[in-house]
Amino acid sequence: MRRALDAARNAALAGEVPVGAVVVLKGEVIAVAANAPRALSDPTAHAEMLAIRAAAARLGRDRLEDCDLWVTLEPCAMCAGAIAHARIARLYYAAPDAKGGAVEHGPRFFGQPTCHHRPEVYAGIAEGEAAGLLRAFFAGRR
Amino acid sequence: MRRALDAARNAALAGEVPVGAVVVLKGEVIAVAANAPRALSDPTAHAEMLAIRAAAARLGRDRLEDCDLWVTLEPCAMCAGAIAHARIARLYYAAPDAKGGAVEHGPRFFGQPTCHHRPEVYAGIAEGEAAGLLRAFFAGRR
Repeated sequence: MRRALDAARNAALAGEVPVGAVVVLKGEVIAVAANAPRALSDPTAHAEMLAIRAAAARLGRDRLEDCDLWVTLEPCAMCAGAIAHARIARLYYAAPDAKGGAVEHGPRFFGQPTCHHRPEVYAGIAEGEAAGLLRAFFAGRR
Repeated sequence: MRRALDAARNAALAGEVPVGAVVVLKGEVIAVAANAPRALSDPTAHAEMLAIRAAAARLGRDRLEDCDLWVTLEPCAMCAGAIAHARIARLYYAAPDAKGGAVEHGPRFFGQPTCHHRPEVYAGIAEGEAAGLLRAFFAGRR
């Protein structure tokens, strides 16, 4: 989660909502990404999406069933869907997102009958630090 | 929808689930994409995602509020989330997807309070042709 938080800080420095994500395979970090929809002109460029895409490209396959995803914020519906498509084994996230989250809020996607893969989910790791980054970012924009 | 169906047929020829998508801006097609997660080693490479990303890259911005999306299958949660993030104005889709759809099935994402943008939705356009392509593809794999 340390690496994901560093990526989130980099996102904030670039003027993007501070969220970072890391994909881990057998204890090795194989992809790190920061949220970057503005910089990339890509509405899908959330940290989770970029990390999953980078990991899949690196491994040369479209399923990451032996990989874990660490992310600083509860994934949205788009990212939860991507996590299921990628067959991510375990999802670790820091802060909950009552406004846009889709794991413990809103659609609660992994509990839907139309969700074809449910990762193990561990929430609240370094929650205070991740939430603090987001609060500081939005406070600075007011 | 004609262009989206052509893209879906190309996906099938490439061994991918036949789904195609098109982004239209003021009557002009600005992006066409076929489903390609295997070819691209990218679990997020659904037709809608690729078309939205191509359109956003072409326009140099991460919001497509003046654009419409045409797709041959009901979007999944990932794609519905991306449609909301991109602020797509109108969504036109052909066949419903009872197993993985997230518009009229499962999470019914655009009706969730955590969904920040709801496009106008028009379903059932060329439904028979789009569903026939999918049926033929899966029948051929059995």
